[in-house]
Amino acid sequence: MTDMAWNRKHLLDIESLTADEIVTVLDTARAFKAVGERAIKKVPALRGRTVVNLFVEPSTRTRISFELAEQRLSADIINFTAEASSLKKGETLKDTARNLEALNADFIVMRHSASGAPHFLARVLNASVINAGDGAHEHPTQALLDAFTIRERKGKIAGLNVTILGDILYSRVARSDIWALTKLGARVTLCGPSTLVPKTFEQMGCRVVHNMDEAIRDADIINLLRIQHERQRKTMFPSINEYTQLFGLNKARLAKTKPDALIMHPGPVNRGVEIDSEIADSSRSLILEQVTNGLAVRMAVLYLVNGGKGPQELTGN
Amino acid sequence: MTDMAWNRKHLLDIESLTADEIVTVLDTARAFKAVGERAIKKVPALRGRTVVNLFVEPSTRTRISFELAEQRLSADIINFTAEASSLKKGETLKDTARNLEALNADFIVMRHSASGAPHFLARVLNASVINAGDGAHEHPTQALLDAFTIRERKGKIAGLNVTILGDILYSRVARSDIWALTKLGARVTLCGPSTLVPKTFEQMGCRVVHNMDEAIRDADIINLLRIQHERQRKTMFPSINEYTQLFGLNKARLAKTKPDALIMHPGPVNRGVEIDSEIADSSRSLILEQVTNGLAVRMAVLYLVNGGKGPQELTGN
Amino acid sequence: MTDMAWNRKHLLDIESLTADEIVTVLDTARAFKAVGERAIKKVPALRGRTVVNLFVEPSTRTRISFELAEQRLSADIINFTAEASSLKKGETLKDTARNLEALNADFIVMRHSASGAPHFLARVLNASVINAGDGAHEHPTQALLDAFTIRERKGKIAGLNVTILGDILYSRVARSDIWALTKLGARVTLCGPSTLVPKTFEQMGCRVVHNMDEAIRDADIINLLRIQHERQRKTMFPSINEYTQLFGLNKARLAKTKPDALIMHPGPVNRGVEIDSEIADSSRSLILEQVTNGLAVRMAVLYLVNGGKGPQELTGN
Repeated sequence: MTDMAWNRKHLLDIESLTADEIVTVLDTARAFKAVGERAIKKVPALRGRTVVNLFVEPSTRTRISFELAEQRLSADIINFTAEASSLKKGETLKDTARNLEALNADFIVMRHSASGAPHFLARVLNASVINAGDGAHEHPTQALLDAFTIRERKGKIAGLNVTILGDILYSRVARSDIWALTKLGARVTLCGPSTLVPKTFEQMGCRVVHNMDEAIRDADIINLLRIQHERQRKTMFPSINEYTQLFGLNKARLAKTKPDALIMHPGPVNRGVEIDSEIADSSRSLILEQVTNGLAVRMAVLYLVNGGKGPQELTGN
Repeated sequence: MTDMAWNRKHLLDIESLTADEIVTVLDTARAFKAVGERAIKKVPALRGRTVVNLFVEPSTRTRISFELAEQRLSADIINFTAEASSLKKGETLKDTARNLEALNADFIVMRHSASGAPHFLARVLNASVINAGDGAHEHPTQALLDAFTIRERKGKIAGLNVTILGDILYSRVARSDIWALTKLGARVTLCGPSTLVPKTFEQMGCRVVHNMDEAIRDADIINLLRIQHERQRKTMFPSINEYTQLFGLNKARLAKTKPDALIMHPGPVNRGVEIDSEIADSSRSLILEQVTNGLAVRMAVLYLVNGGKGPQELTGN
Repeated sequence: MTDMAWNRKHLLDIESLTADEIVTVLDTARAFKAVGERAIKKVPALRGRTVVNLFVEPSTRTRISFELAEQRLSADIINFTAEASSLKKGETLKDTARNLEALNADFIVMRHSASGAPHFLARVLNASVINAGDGAHEHPTQALLDAFTIRERKGKIAGLNVTILGDILYSRVARSDIWALTKLGARVTLCGPSTLVPKTFEQMGCRVVHNMDEAIRDADIINLLRIQHERQRKTMFPSINEYTQLFGLNKARLAKTKPDALIMHPGPVNRGVEIDSEIADSSRSLILEQVTNGLAVRMAVLYLVNGGKGPQELTGN
């Protein structure tokens, strides 16, 4: 375990974190994961603190994961969901956020369809802001839970080959994963249709490949992004069937990977589209572990931005 | 009080319960009802345990009753409501449930429009599953609260005449009530239009009668089911007016019942349809007691499936 | 601080309160405001008590403020929102409320589009009823937080000149503010278009003025009500532009006020309509303080209707 390295008030993105800071989150999450395995899954770390879940874009899974993390930390919770349309002017978003802060909110967990919205809030508020996904920009807690899951199962991240497949161009998950994994020493390969995986991503330190067999041949981790059905109408996207033929993970393709390659997916899975149903449920799939680890990572993030001093301080309740 | 008889992890239906198990729930609920009458209506029995309310069919009353029961047991609570349409494939329901379980959910309280959905979940999950109503199949906690209410007011169930009126064919409440009351020794009479109360119900040990006066003459308990206005369009259902004339409980009919016959209704009441407004509010109506008792019964069920050892173990807070 | 003067079970309106009762709420709120400034913003005053938030008219801010107040008092909380249409008959509202009460609810916090709805509930229920806004009648906690904010910043209320601007005729905020401020000795001036600020309000002890410059010249407090865009279609209302020209608070008008005049607004603000954006954000604006104080006032009200014995009794947790 590294020494504690966290003095941040916000978690806005992975890009600005150091490798040490990322490792601190992962180490802290390990302690919180143990809390989740106890009969009484609760610690008093945020007792009497107020968290606002400000979701200006629909989300069920991420919101529930955050809400449960907050409950297990004993926080008081306010859920505020809004239509982006009613908040589309920056000024009005600011008003909404300031009003929430005036209720003595200590934390704003925010999802927004506009890239940079959490950064904007962090500038105008005194509360801690946690980015729960902003536009096509970043989804930092997803990357942290992905890194946690890989490290737990592979024992390390440095030196691993991680392949991310899908609609990279519009994916905040991909962007955050790339930042986190390259900072921790993994070699990241991106793969998908060339319209959705442009060569410019090589500037982020990745390899870009448009042939799936090549992309997964040496992979230790294969991370399949969800294909959005609604993208079908867009001209740059092939048909779903064509996508599945070219980039779907099926048994034949899996047979060509390393025998210990593991499969990840941020969920929810389109069974039969980006992945065969049987593979999603197999022992090589980490999909449900990602969900479990997401809870631990979100507890760790809330704990750290609240000034928590790391795993050794954590006590039961 | 009987000896404790509960070793089940799930509550899926009444059909598979023994009379002793039912009585154990009722005895435990009696202790929890006393909790509800205290100023501080809270016990720590489920502290640090996570309950997911997975409602895939709209419900307000049952969901609120469960949620309050969970709060009073000090559980952490996640409400997950979904459209059945987005979950209509069993596989997707399984994915949803497994994802919730991956968040370390200890209990899934489930309402679903498909009969058998909770049984399916119980087979694929490690969490405890509680059926909050599945299709036209069963609504076990409603039957338990009905049995509790009858026993509390009449001092017993065995030997009583209980008449259930209404749309029996499509009613999960009726099915669960029939199982519970016959197991506990009551004589159950069913009554309503012959299209909705077929003779085949006699196989469940009930008497089937299509004349209301005959059905209620000797009844100790008259349980009126809610008439669904939306059924009017269906050909097998008479008009609402005709139903009220033939099967509505009015003063003239009430005068012909035993003087100590009591009136029940699972709510919400259609005043002036299946029951006169004045009767619903009279001292012979148990309708609001059923609501109060529902809370106690749901606390008891959650407590027992969590491995609670019965009333004598219950302590204050 | 005055002696405690609160023996009420409900908070239905300001009209029926004495000045002493109002001052008791303000004094109690002062103690609760200090709780909101602590790291652990929680007291056990309502532990094990059940509050139902029954909102039969859409509201985000008021509901969140009440919900957070309830959380900080450690209450168990049920949120029940309904369409007024489905509850439009008094009888059905009564059924809904009685069902909620049968769940052992101790408090019903109610917003309703019909004036008098909370008074009706208070007559038929045993629970305490708190009016969170009823039609165009009253919004008592808003008036209490306004009075609290004025007293905190000005050191007193008696003798101050308070001007309320906007659609007074249909405003429950205006009505409650008038009652509270006149009872506490302020001189209240009302201003707005003559169709919306009829002379009949003089019977409530106010001055009615239709010229803005005259209305704000001697004001110590200028309280701007929100202009409802949807009113534009109504014949008695001028266009939004015309309203802003005649009654919007801009820099030129502000320059003519007393230098220590302070600006209030119940929110949400229509920037550029009833107030210039810059003024809303200036040091003379109390808008966000009102939000913070609303939380403290609502904690105080819940505490007092629960039989709390006033500030000196309040202890930490």
